[in-house]
Amino acid sequence: PQSRLPHVGTTIFSVMSALAFQHKAVNLGQGFPDFACEPALIDAVHEAMRAGHNQYPPMQGVPLLRQRIAEKLARQHGRSADPDTEITITAGATQAILTALLALVHPGDEVIVLEPCYDSYGPAIELAGGKIVRVGLDPLTFRPDFDRLRAALTAKTRVVIVNSPHNPTGVVWESAEWNALAECLRGSAAWVISDEVYEHMVFDDRAHSGVWRHPELAPKSLMISSFGKTYHVTGWKVGYVVAPAALTAEFRKVHQFNVFTVNTPMQYGLAAFMAEPHHHESLSAFYQAKRDHFCAGLAQTPLRLLPCEGTYFVCAEYDAISRSSDAEFCRWLTTEVGVAAIPLSAFYAEPPTQQRIRFCFAKQTATLDNALQRLKTLR
Amino acid sequence: PQSRLPHVGTTIFSVMSALAFQHKAVNLGQGFPDFACEPALIDAVHEAMRAGHNQYPPMQGVPLLRQRIAEKLARQHGRSADPDTEITITAGATQAILTALLALVHPGDEVIVLEPCYDSYGPAIELAGGKIVRVGLDPLTFRPDFDRLRAALTAKTRVVIVNSPHNPTGVVWESAEWNALAECLRGSAAWVISDEVYEHMVFDDRAHSGVWRHPELAPKSLMISSFGKTYHVTGWKVGYVVAPAALTAEFRKVHQFNVFTVNTPMQYGLAAFMAEPHHHESLSAFYQAKRDHFCAGLAQTPLRLLPCEGTYFVCAEYDAISRSSDAEFCRWLTTEVGVAAIPLSAFYAEPPTQQRIRFCFAKQTATLDNALQRLKTLR
Ligand SMILES: CSCCC(=O)C(=O)O
Ligand SMILES: CSCCC(=O)C(=O)O
Repeated sequence: PQSRLPHVGTTIFSVMSALAFQHKAVNLGQGFPDFACEPALIDAVHEAMRAGHNQYPPMQGVPLLRQRIAEKLARQHGRSADPDTEITITAGATQAILTALLALVHPGDEVIVLEPCYDSYGPAIELAGGKIVRVGLDPLTFRPDFDRLRAALTAKTRVVIVNSPHNPTGVVWESAEWNALAECLRGSAAWVISDEVYEHMVFDDRAHSGVWRHPELAPKSLMISSFGKTYHVTGWKVGYVVAPAALTAEFRKVHQFNVFTVNTPMQYGLAAFMAEPHHHESLSAFYQAKRDHFCAGLAQTPLRLLPCEGTYFVCAEYDAISRSSDAEFCRWLTTEVGVAAIPLSAFYAEPPTQQRIRFCFAKQTATLDNALQRLKTLR
Repeated sequence: PQSRLPHVGTTIFSVMSALAFQHKAVNLGQGFPDFACEPALIDAVHEAMRAGHNQYPPMQGVPLLRQRIAEKLARQHGRSADPDTEITITAGATQAILTALLALVHPGDEVIVLEPCYDSYGPAIELAGGKIVRVGLDPLTFRPDFDRLRAALTAKTRVVIVNSPHNPTGVVWESAEWNALAECLRGSAAWVISDEVYEHMVFDDRAHSGVWRHPELAPKSLMISSFGKTYHVTGWKVGYVVAPAALTAEFRKVHQFNVFTVNTPMQYGLAAFMAEPHHHESLSAFYQAKRDHFCAGLAQTPLRLLPCEGTYFVCAEYDAISRSSDAEFCRWLTTEVGVAAIPLSAFYAEPPTQQRIRFCFAKQTATLDNALQRLKTLR
């Protein structure tokens, strides 16, 4: 059949995971933990299944889970949300992003992404009939450049997609940057899709701010988060969207005809588990220790570390070692050195010349050490 | 925001379930069982979680589950499928339908649906930028009318959506009808999306045929099925798509940017459970007994039963009782009589004048008896 996405292949995360598996490389590519989630979370899901929670939940999600999210928002941002009209459970964040775009974008509308960005944004915009407008982050610091954003806004801009803590670069926006975004969008009719799936991984006493706590951004934004990232269960595919009622209503119209609804026992299990906020409140410290351990090791290789303020990713430059492209280098690193990483080029439509790769450090210490030992053989 | 689906409200299934709950009515509306799934299935999922299967599975699905589906297809249709290139696991059948449409339909293409039909088809076609072409099933028998289908086919027809066993009418297509479909589409470039989620619920010694066993249809079709329906776990949201490699490749391009992947522990649990084919092979007999029990009771009410050859739905006419519309009648039945059903009008863009409603009989005998007792008060 004539392709709707002719230039799209298999997502880089699948490609690199398959290559890592095939070559028995340490997989620091695709972002997922290699350690177990809390047994209490598994028990809670098991309990839900045994209690008979195996049929369709309400389309917008299990009420108790939406209630728990509302409570978390109040603690975290000093601003709750109405579980009935402002919170929707999704089959992960990627589904939330496509659904939001299908709900908001009319054919021909422009959607701004800040590059580099997660590889689903572009194809999702295309599927929604939108025109992708790529605005570069600062090429050295990867911080948002609001002059460029302002210059890209037009009367046709329907959506701006933002992402902090940022995949792949680990940049965490400061309050001033959220304010600058708000200022930029003052007078524009654009909506904001804010991908905040790494909200609970911010380091060195930083705080994640985001759209929901921002009085000017909240009324025009959909905030997307992920239980998979926060609770070490990326394969459960449960996330959520917080948005004002009018936006939520449009989101749900599409959601109900996309997945209709989301895994019932996982929703009950997560609701029970969320009663203990320390699980996500301690996450930043947990991942900061991993970052510090991994980065200390990487400093002893020829790879040059870039700063990492949040997420479970850290980027490195390999300009000491010559290869034709990031993708080429990552293949070589996987097959010859035995460590899989993700080429930063995969996060761009037209990759720049900097030679950069992304590592995921959501791994057991033994895994990180194994990878570091191999990376130390680099010359 | 300006709506992408301005004429769409909340899906009728959610509306009627909420109304049933509010009025403590017996809920024979939305299609889901009110009895437990097999404990062995729950145990298998629990085991998978404890074994650490909680991170992203491969994008196309867990290999063992795809293998089991291939084996089932071989037993069922005498024709296997390649698990690597022809089978993809989805977050339920509804997600599979939207994904297939997004993958196949280019803006302006025509998509034919046979009306009445499941309420997601229309909005999903719209979201994909397609033009919906509605072809009526025979208004008395609900069987496909291939002369009308032939008349509706144009050079712009990209997809024809078919569904047997049929929701809401319970009609099961015979081999001759699948042959007629193949004959109709000979020479057309249209693809077939075949919604076969009720494939294991066919009664009175009928057999489900479908696209995959059909030598002419298989190369141009996506066959969609559902574990939720077959194993009494509608809330787990796991289904699958079988299609030739070239179609599967396009399907997966979109799938990876919609949900990316599907719940890992459920996939492992289902793979373990599928090793015992008797679970689905005995399903038709199980539901036939429920149909017979429910229909015998309904025969003692003023409602007039329509034939039910498959699915867990049966339709009835209420022309003895005057109400302004199917929706009106269903509201009244829920709030005043205490039994929720689905108005057949919800399955049409422009409902006909016949007064018909759909009951779901996937319920415990006590539930069905409770509903029947209430329905027997109808005059
Ligand atoms: C959905 S693929 C893997 C997860 C991820 O977000 C990433 O590695 O960037
Ligand atoms: C997805 S809503 C409920 C299930 C169903 O298919 C139906 O009731 O028709």
